[in-house]
Amino acid sequence: MLELLVETRCFAGLHRRYRFHSRELAGDTVFAVFLPPQALEGARVPVLYWLSGLSCTDENVMQKAGAQRLAAELGLALVAPDTSPRGEKVPSDPEGSWDFGHGAGFYVDASQAPWSRHYRMHSYVTLELPELVEAQLPISNRRGISGHSMGGHGALVGAMRHPGRYSSVSALAPIANPARCPWGQKAFSYLLGSDNQTWQAWDASALLSSGQGPVGPDGRPLPLLVDQGSADPFLASELKPEALEAAATASDHPLTLRRQAGYDHSFFFVSSFIDDHLRHHAAALLS
Amino acid sequence: MLELLVETRCFAGLHRRYRFHSRELAGDTVFAVFLPPQALEGARVPVLYWLSGLSCTDENVMQKAGAQRLAAELGLALVAPDTSPRGEKVPSDPEGSWDFGHGAGFYVDASQAPWSRHYRMHSYVTLELPELVEAQLPISNRRGISGHSMGGHGALVGAMRHPGRYSSVSALAPIANPARCPWGQKAFSYLLGSDNQTWQAWDASALLSSGQGPVGPDGRPLPLLVDQGSADPFLASELKPEALEAAATASDHPLTLRRQAGYDHSFFFVSSFIDDHLRHHAAALLS
Repeated sequence: MLELLVETRCFAGLHRRYRFHSRELAGDTVFAVFLPPQALEGARVPVLYWLSGLSCTDENVMQKAGAQRLAAELGLALVAPDTSPRGEKVPSDPEGSWDFGHGAGFYVDASQAPWSRHYRMHSYVTLELPELVEAQLPISNRRGISGHSMGGHGALVGAMRHPGRYSSVSALAPIANPARCPWGQKAFSYLLGSDNQTWQAWDASALLSSGQGPVGPDGRPLPLLVDQGSADPFLASELKPEALEAAATASDHPLTLRRQAGYDHSFFFVSSFIDDHLRHHAAALLS
Repeated sequence: MLELLVETRCFAGLHRRYRFHSRELAGDTVFAVFLPPQALEGARVPVLYWLSGLSCTDENVMQKAGAQRLAAELGLALVAPDTSPRGEKVPSDPEGSWDFGHGAGFYVDASQAPWSRHYRMHSYVTLELPELVEAQLPISNRRGISGHSMGGHGALVGAMRHPGRYSSVSALAPIANPARCPWGQKAFSYLLGSDNQTWQAWDASALLSSGQGPVGPDGRPLPLLVDQGSADPFLASELKPEALEAAATASDHPLTLRRQAGYDHSFFFVSSFIDDHLRHHAAALLS
């Protein structure tokens, strides 16, 4: 049961927010969708799933990225889930920090108590949410996936763990090697336990270097587009695009890593390059 | 003395926030500027002043309108002041409401105590701020002015009260007849006093119907572009575009009033039409 919370006209399409009870998250969650005008005229349109970063909700990308203009022109739907399970019954960071817990679910399926009951963001965003929107909205099963920061990590890992499920993948300033950075180590320790061998299956650089690069419905490798600002304060300590680059080279996987001079980690960076990402996805989804 | 608070790269230009002591506002204030790439390459670029609506700061339009993309392409600077004086010494709504006082200065020069000391937003945005940015930033004296809601009112009145000062003017969902709507009547009662004859000089529809429509540097009438969503919840009670339309007809002033079916009062509406407004201004500012 989808409960419509908000409906707002935008670029001749519709921005909507829905709440529903998620099986994977074992609780209510909210997501946003942008339906381009083509979807209102009876077409079933391809879709870009967008995963947001630490401390975001579904609202940030819809309000700040400026993606709807070109999505409307191209005829792409956008779907933006929340960044974690939420609610009084959902455990959060024991230290009360913003980099883990509510708003920071890290897009894995947790194996450790008490996290494993609600923190199943990976299965939620890659399986449950697409199943729902494809059944109930004019959205097709031609899927792209992208995201920013923690969401870039989620998008890369999501595509890599599900060969054939996505037709396109990209990321902006992703946490490219979470098993080896403080944000990822903290979250994975809680969610996946202390054995960091199990972390490798949730680390884009580890997956890619072991030959599990993303593969499209036709069985061919999906080219990766990644943008990274050179003035991003988290670049060296948390994001580590060089690890992804080395993995792509080692596994001979196509990667376009663009280092964007002077850009930081904000939505001013995301908005500056979102159109290039939409075109990257549209080239695959609308072909 | 401009104090740089934030500098962020955006669309190959720069988003900045500055703080300085405003003479007109008798206190510190913050404004934002977007400098397009052309301004970083030594050009002095024309500028669009953007006045925001109730409860906004300089940040809303910069984060939510998606204006930088086309502004960068066109070579237009954007300047966004705050919506009121602020600070502990600045009086605000006695009732603590959001529709008057801090965040809601209504872009007039107050004549009544205690408001008249700080609430001089009109002189601040039309005179002091342009003087400052034209002296200290690579911004020319070719000026356009626009805004949303309360800021649309401010833009229209600003252009009408200063013949020859602006080369272009437009508004999105402006409070078009503030002397005759609850928001305007409340604010004007405080700021301008109870004699509503004095309010007419701060009301776009009244000014236009009395023949004081906006005039450009060449002495010719400036064509007005106004967008208004048909599903805007404030349309009938507060915005009253029909009053502006009647005044334009009565005074034979060129007005393009576009009623946009289904759009509301949010930034989803603003972002959907901001490009049309930028092009409207660019046609005058870059000719």
